[in-house]
Amino acid sequence: MSDNRPALGVGMVGYAFMGRVHSQAWRSVGAFFDLPVAPVMAVLSGRSKDRTSAAAADLGWAAVETDWKDLIKRDDVDIVDICTPGDSHAEIAIAALDAGKHVLCEKPLANTVAEAEAMVAAAERAAARGVRSMVAFNYRRVPAIALARQMVAEGRLGELRHVRAQYLQDWIADPDFPLVWRLQKDKAGSGALGDIGSHIVDTTQFVTGQTLTGVSGITETFIGDRPLAEESAGLAAGAAGAGSTGTVTVDDAALFVGRLSGGAVASFEATRFATGRKNAMRIEINGSRGSLAFDFESMNELWFHDHTLAAEEAGFRRILVTEAGHPYAGAWWPPGHGLGYEHTFSHEVKDFLEAIGTGSDPSPSFADGLRVQRVLAAVEESAANESRWTPIPR
Amino acid sequence: MSDNRPALGVGMVGYAFMGRVHSQAWRSVGAFFDLPVAPVMAVLSGRSKDRTSAAAADLGWAAVETDWKDLIKRDDVDIVDICTPGDSHAEIAIAALDAGKHVLCEKPLANTVAEAEAMVAAAERAAARGVRSMVAFNYRRVPAIALARQMVAEGRLGELRHVRAQYLQDWIADPDFPLVWRLQKDKAGSGALGDIGSHIVDTTQFVTGQTLTGVSGITETFIGDRPLAEESAGLAAGAAGAGSTGTVTVDDAALFVGRLSGGAVASFEATRFATGRKNAMRIEINGSRGSLAFDFESMNELWFHDHTLAAEEAGFRRILVTEAGHPYAGAWWPPGHGLGYEHTFSHEVKDFLEAIGTGSDPSPSFADGLRVQRVLAAVEESAANESRWTPIPR
Amino acid sequence: MSDNRPALGVGMVGYAFMGRVHSQAWRSVGAFFDLPVAPVMAVLSGRSKDRTSAAAADLGWAAVETDWKDLIKRDDVDIVDICTPGDSHAEIAIAALDAGKHVLCEKPLANTVAEAEAMVAAAERAAARGVRSMVAFNYRRVPAIALARQMVAEGRLGELRHVRAQYLQDWIADPDFPLVWRLQKDKAGSGALGDIGSHIVDTTQFVTGQTLTGVSGITETFIGDRPLAEESAGLAAGAAGAGSTGTVTVDDAALFVGRLSGGAVASFEATRFATGRKNAMRIEINGSRGSLAFDFESMNELWFHDHTLAAEEAGFRRILVTEAGHPYAGAWWPPGHGLGYEHTFSHEVKDFLEAIGTGSDPSPSFADGLRVQRVLAAVEESAANESRWTPIPR
Amino acid sequence: MSDNRPALGVGMVGYAFMGRVHSQAWRSVGAFFDLPVAPVMAVLSGRSKDRTSAAAADLGWAAVETDWKDLIKRDDVDIVDICTPGDSHAEIAIAALDAGKHVLCEKPLANTVAEAEAMVAAAERAAARGVRSMVAFNYRRVPAIALARQMVAEGRLGELRHVRAQYLQDWIADPDFPLVWRLQKDKAGSGALGDIGSHIVDTTQFVTGQTLTGVSGITETFIGDRPLAEESAGLAAGAAGAGSTGTVTVDDAALFVGRLSGGAVASFEATRFATGRKNAMRIEINGSRGSLAFDFESMNELWFHDHTLAAEEAGFRRILVTEAGHPYAGAWWPPGHGLGYEHTFSHEVKDFLEAIGTGSDPSPSFADGLRVQRVLAAVEESAANESRWTPIPR
Repeated sequence: MSDNRPALGVGMVGYAFMGRVHSQAWRSVGAFFDLPVAPVMAVLSGRSKDRTSAAAADLGWAAVETDWKDLIKRDDVDIVDICTPGDSHAEIAIAALDAGKHVLCEKPLANTVAEAEAMVAAAERAAARGVRSMVAFNYRRVPAIALARQMVAEGRLGELRHVRAQYLQDWIADPDFPLVWRLQKDKAGSGALGDIGSHIVDTTQFVTGQTLTGVSGITETFIGDRPLAEESAGLAAGAAGAGSTGTVTVDDAALFVGRLSGGAVASFEATRFATGRKNAMRIEINGSRGSLAFDFESMNELWFHDHTLAAEEAGFRRILVTEAGHPYAGAWWPPGHGLGYEHTFSHEVKDFLEAIGTGSDPSPSFADGLRVQRVLAAVEESAANESRWTPIPR
Repeated sequence: MSDNRPALGVGMVGYAFMGRVHSQAWRSVGAFFDLPVAPVMAVLSGRSKDRTSAAAADLGWAAVETDWKDLIKRDDVDIVDICTPGDSHAEIAIAALDAGKHVLCEKPLANTVAEAEAMVAAAERAAARGVRSMVAFNYRRVPAIALARQMVAEGRLGELRHVRAQYLQDWIADPDFPLVWRLQKDKAGSGALGDIGSHIVDTTQFVTGQTLTGVSGITETFIGDRPLAEESAGLAAGAAGAGSTGTVTVDDAALFVGRLSGGAVASFEATRFATGRKNAMRIEINGSRGSLAFDFESMNELWFHDHTLAAEEAGFRRILVTEAGHPYAGAWWPPGHGLGYEHTFSHEVKDFLEAIGTGSDPSPSFADGLRVQRVLAAVEESAANESRWTPIPR
Repeated sequence: MSDNRPALGVGMVGYAFMGRVHSQAWRSVGAFFDLPVAPVMAVLSGRSKDRTSAAAADLGWAAVETDWKDLIKRDDVDIVDICTPGDSHAEIAIAALDAGKHVLCEKPLANTVAEAEAMVAAAERAAARGVRSMVAFNYRRVPAIALARQMVAEGRLGELRHVRAQYLQDWIADPDFPLVWRLQKDKAGSGALGDIGSHIVDTTQFVTGQTLTGVSGITETFIGDRPLAEESAGLAAGAAGAGSTGTVTVDDAALFVGRLSGGAVASFEATRFATGRKNAMRIEINGSRGSLAFDFESMNELWFHDHTLAAEEAGFRRILVTEAGHPYAGAWWPPGHGLGYEHTFSHEVKDFLEAIGTGSDPSPSFADGLRVQRVLAAVEESAANESRWTPIPR
Repeated sequence: MSDNRPALGVGMVGYAFMGRVHSQAWRSVGAFFDLPVAPVMAVLSGRSKDRTSAAAADLGWAAVETDWKDLIKRDDVDIVDICTPGDSHAEIAIAALDAGKHVLCEKPLANTVAEAEAMVAAAERAAARGVRSMVAFNYRRVPAIALARQMVAEGRLGELRHVRAQYLQDWIADPDFPLVWRLQKDKAGSGALGDIGSHIVDTTQFVTGQTLTGVSGITETFIGDRPLAEESAGLAAGAAGAGSTGTVTVDDAALFVGRLSGGAVASFEATRFATGRKNAMRIEINGSRGSLAFDFESMNELWFHDHTLAAEEAGFRRILVTEAGHPYAGAWWPPGHGLGYEHTFSHEVKDFLEAIGTGSDPSPSFADGLRVQRVLAAVEESAANESRWTPIPR
C-alpha cells in the first residue's frame, strides 16, 4: 500500500508481558489490515535507560524515554499505549488525553472506581476535541467471542437465561511462588478478581449486550504469605533476608452470582488456583433458542447449540472460527489455520486505528471500563458484607 | 450360585421413571455381583389396580398392592423401596421402618427439613433393631464418581481449593411444557434445587469427604405459568378447560456459592433451562496436587490432572473408568465397554443388599440425606433474604 | 403385559463373555420393549456340568446341558443362541437350523468363507420353512450407528466420498499376556482382523448401504510367542512346563484400504496394540453434503457436520443419541441418561424376536455375515500377495 | 539487542499465501528469539511490477524485482526464500545455491524425484562451501510436534507399533470450485498427495525418527472437470468462454498403508473432500510404553497416554504445549496463551537463521525432502499398479 495515509506515532509505556504483545500487534497490523492511518512505532518508555533501550531494540521501537511524562510531550507521539500496572493508569491516561493524545489503556481500567470515574471524565473532555480512548479488553477481539456477540445480537439464542463464566488459571497454586506485584493491593488493586475476573465481566456484558444489575459473592486468599520476589525484596527495605516473606493483600479467588439487565442469571468464578487450567477463560450462554460455549484454551472454537432444530439432530457444534466470513479471521489464513493469543491484540489495535482514522468512538470505551470496575467493587462490597446482594449503579 | 443365601422380598412403591430403573437394578444385580442375600421381586404397589398390574407384569414383580400400607404389612416383604414423589417419602419410610422393613428411599430424602429429621429419627430407632435405611443418591455409584472419592481420600488432589458443580438440563425450556408434578411445590418441595441440585450437593460432600458450612444464592423461575398437564388438569377440578394454565410454584434454576469444612470454596448451579445440556451433572475439583473433572453426559470418563508431574508433561487425562480395578466396573464388561445410567442403580442396590447381609450401615444414610436437605433449605433461605450468607447447621 | 403371546424357549451355547452379555439381553428385553413373542431362558449348555450349572444359576437359565447336540434336540428350545468361538459356529448353526430352531450366531459368522457359505445355504433352507437366522453384529444396534445409517439413507451426507474406520484396542500389548484362544488360528480363524475388523467392515456396509468391491492390505504379528494360558497349557500336551510359550498364529493388526460400490474410498485398521485405546470402534464418513463421526468409547454420541449450512455456522455437532425419537433410545431413559455396551445386545435380541414374531427375515442375515467373511478373506489374500488389489466376489 | 550481529538480506520469490506467512515470520522472529544473525527483509520478486510493489509495501519488503534471476544476483540478498508453486522450485533453488545464496524452499521440495535429486546434489555442492539449504516442512515446528519427536526419542513410547496419519481438508468438495493451479499436474506435481500428504509423510518420519520402507495405496479424483479459474481461463487460450471447464489432472485423495524401518505399520490418508475437516493434519502413534495423538485443528494440544502407569489411572492426557519448557513456546506468552499457524514459520525461520549463524546444517534438509518425494512417487506407482507393495529406495 504505497502510502498517502496519515502516519500516527505510537508511544508505549511499559515493556513487560503486555508491552511485548502490544508491540507485536503494532508491528503486524499493517500487513494484514487495510488501515486508514499508518502506525509508526515511535517511542518506548521505561524507568531504566538500559533496559528500555534493549527492549526497544528487540521490539522495534525507534526511540526511548525514561519518564512517561516526556513521552507524552513528544510531537512524534500521537497515540499513548499504556501497558503498566493498574496503579499508574489514571495518572498517565488523564495526562495523555489532556495533552491531546489518543489513549489505549490496559485493563482493568483502574484500581478504584474513583480513578476510573476521573478517567471517564478525561475521556469525555478529550472526545469533545476528537481525541479517542479505549480500554484494552482484548478478549472482545477473539474471533469466536466477536462471533458470539453477533449471534446473540441476531437473536440466535432467543431470550437469554443463563451465563456461566469462569477464568481459571493455576500459576500461583505453588506456595513458593513469590509475592509479585500482581499479589499486592497497592499495585494491582485486587487479585484474581480485577486481573481476570474483569475479563469475564466485560466479556459477559459484551456478548450479551446487557449489563449486570447486581451481584453477591465471596473472595478467598488461600495462601496468606509468600516469599518476597526479587523486585519486592528490593522494595522491602534492608531487613529482608533470605527466606523472608510478605503478606498477600489481594484475593486468590472470587466467586459470585449476578443478574443481567435482560433477566438472565449468571455465575462467575475467577481463580489462580485451578490446577491444570492454564488460561481457561470460559463463557457459556443458554438462551431459549440456543446456547453458546467458549474456552480460550481452544480459542479458535465456538460451540453452538441450535435449539430450534429437531431434538434428534441437535447438539453442540464446534464452529472453527477461521472462515473468511468470521470476524477478523478473513485477514489471516485459510480455514482451519488457527490464530493465537497475540492476534487478539492485533485486532484491538486495528479497531482502534480505524476509529481514529474514521473519527468514531472506539469500543470498549473508558465508560465500559468503569462499568466493569463498578461490578468488581460491588463484588468486593458484597464479599465484605456477608455476601449480601449488592446492586450495580448504572 | 446355587443358593442357601437368605432370600429377601422386595416391595416397591411407585412404578414411574424411578420404579422402572429400580426394577432393572433388582432384576440384574444378582447376575453380576456375589451377594450375601438373594433379592426377590415380590410386590409392587400403585394406586390403580390395572396400571399397577400391567407394570408388574412388564417389570417382573410377582404381586401387586394398591395401598402401600398393605405392602408394608406383608410377610413376603423385607425391603421397602420408595419410588414416589417427595411429599410421601416421610410417611412411607417411617411406617416401613417402624414395621421393621429395611428402606431404600429415593432422593431428595424429603420435602422439608422437619420431615427429614423425623425420618432420621425413625432410621436411628430402626438401626438399633438391625433395620437398615439408605437414601438413593445414585450418582455416588457412578464408577467415575466413586473413583473420584477414592482419589481425593488417597490425597491425590492434596488440599482442596475449588469445587465447581453444575447440573444442567433443558427439558422445560419450552414454555408449552406442561405443569407436571415436579413443578409443583406441594408435590416436589422445590424445583431444580431439590431435584437435581440435591445430587450435586450430595456428590460434592461425598467426593470431597467434607460438608458445606454455609451458602449464599439466588433462585429464579423463568416461566411462571404453564399449561395444565393431563394429570394436573384432572386434579384441578372441573373448571380447567382447554388452554387453561397453572402457576409454577418452584424454582427453574438455583445458583449458589458455598464453603466446605476443609477450606475450599464452591460454586453450584442447577437448572432445567440450559438448552442443549441434557443431563450434564458435572463436578470439577481443584486441589493443590491435582484436579478432577466429571460430566455425566460422558459418564464412563473421569478427567484427572496430576499437578505433581513436570508441567511439560502434565494435563487433564481421560481415564476410561471401565477397568477391572475400578469401583464396580470389574463386575461387568472388558475395558472400554461402557456402562449406562441404569448401572448406577444396580450398584446402589448391590451395596444396600451387602450392608443388609453383613449387618452394617449402608451409605448414604438418612442422616446424609438430611445434611443435603439442610443445604437446600439454607439456599432457599439465603435467596429469600437478599442472598445473605447462611450457615448450615451441623 | 399379561400375556397371551407365544412363549419361545431360548437355548444358549457358551457362557463366557458373550454368553453373559446375551443373558442380560434375554433377561431385560421384555421389560423395555413390547414384543410379539415372550422369550424364556430355558437351557444353557457347556462342557463342564458344574461350571455350566453355576453359570446357569448366576445368569438365570432354567436348565443345563453338557452337549449342544442335546440342547438342540429339546422341545423347550425354539431359539439357539451360539456364543462359542468361531470354529464351532458352522456345525452348531447348521444342525440347529436343520432341526428347525431359529439361530442367533455370534460374529464373525465363521472362520472360513467355505463354512460361511455352508451356513448361508442352511439359513436359506431354513428360511423356506419359516426358520430365522441372524448374525450378531451387535454394533448395528448402537443407537448412534443406527441413526447414522438412517441419516445416510435420507441423503443427509449426499454422495459418499470417504470412510475411515478403526477398531483400536490394547489388551494384548503386553508381551506377557498369554496365548488365549483368540490368538490361535484353529480356534479364532484370524486375529484382530476377524474379531474386530469384522465389526468395522460390517458397520461400514451397514451405515453406507454399500458393499466393499475390493481391498488392498497388510497384516502384522508384533509378538510371535506368548506364555501358554492355563487353558492352552492344558491343551499343549504333557511337555508344557513352567515358562513354556506357544506361537501366536493370528494377526495382531490389519490395515487395509478399499473401495465401496457407490464410489467412496475407505481406510480400515484393526489392532490390539493401540495402547490407551480400549474399545475405540470408530467410523467417520465424509459425503458431499455432510459428515458423520462415531467412537464407541463415547457410544452415546454421534457427531454430524451439516455441510449445507453456511460455512460460518457449520461444524461437527455432538448429537447425544438419547432422545425419544432416536433408534431404540425411547425405550429406556430420558435424554442424556446414556446407555452402555450391553444395550446393543438387548436391541439385537429385540429385533430378532420381532422378526420371528412377525415372520420376517432378521438382519444382519447369514448372507451379510458371509459378505463380511469374503472381505476378511480378501484382506488376507492381498496381504499374502504383496498387498495386490483383491476384488470381493459379490 | 543493540547490534553487532551480521545482517543477512533475505530475498523472497512469490507473495501469495506462502509469501504472506513467510513475511510475517521474517518480520517477527527477531523480537522473540535471540538470533546470531539479523535478517533484513531486502527484496521481493514477482512477475507483475505493480502487484509485487503493492505486496512489498504491505508485507514490509524494501525492494522489488520482477525476475527471480535478478533477485539472485543482488548483493543485498544472502538468503533466497522460495514461495512459488512446485514446478519452479528446482530451477530457482539450484540457481540460488550455485550463486552462493542460502535457500529456504517451500514444500514439497519438487514435483518429481528427478528434480529433487538434482536439488539435493546442488545442496551438497553448496554445503561444501558453507551455503545452507532447508525445505519448509513447517509442521515440524509446531511445538506439539516437536515435543512429540522429543518424547519418542526419549523412549516414552517404547517400541513403536502403529502410526495413523491423516490430512483432511474440504476446500474443493464443492464441484463449482475452480480449476486452480493446485489442481493441475504440470504446476503442482500431484494433488492432495503432494500438497498435504507430503506433510504427514514428513511428520511421520520426523516424529518417529524412522523412514518408510514401502507402501501400498490408491488415489482417487472425485470430480474430473471443473470451471476454469480466472487465472487458468487466461492461460487456456482464446477459446475459453463463459462456463468453460477444464480437466483436473491430480488426485483429490490418496490413501495408503506403509511400514517403517523400526517395524511399525502405518496408515495414511490425504484428502480435500472430508467435509467439515478444515485443516485436520493428524497423527497418532502407538508404542509399547505409550501413545501420542495430535490434530492441527487444536494445534496447542498434544495428547499423551502413558502406558506405564497403572491401568486404573492411565488415559490420554491433554498437554497444553504452551509451557516455558516446551519447544519454542517459552519465547512467546505465558502458559495457556496459545500460538497459531503462523508461528510454525517463525520457528522455521529461527532455526534456519541459527543454523546459518552457527555454521551447521539445518533440518529438514533437501535430502529429507527427497526422502518424502520418493514416498510420494512410490504411492503413485503402487496406485497405478494394482496397489502392489512398492519399496522406497533409501
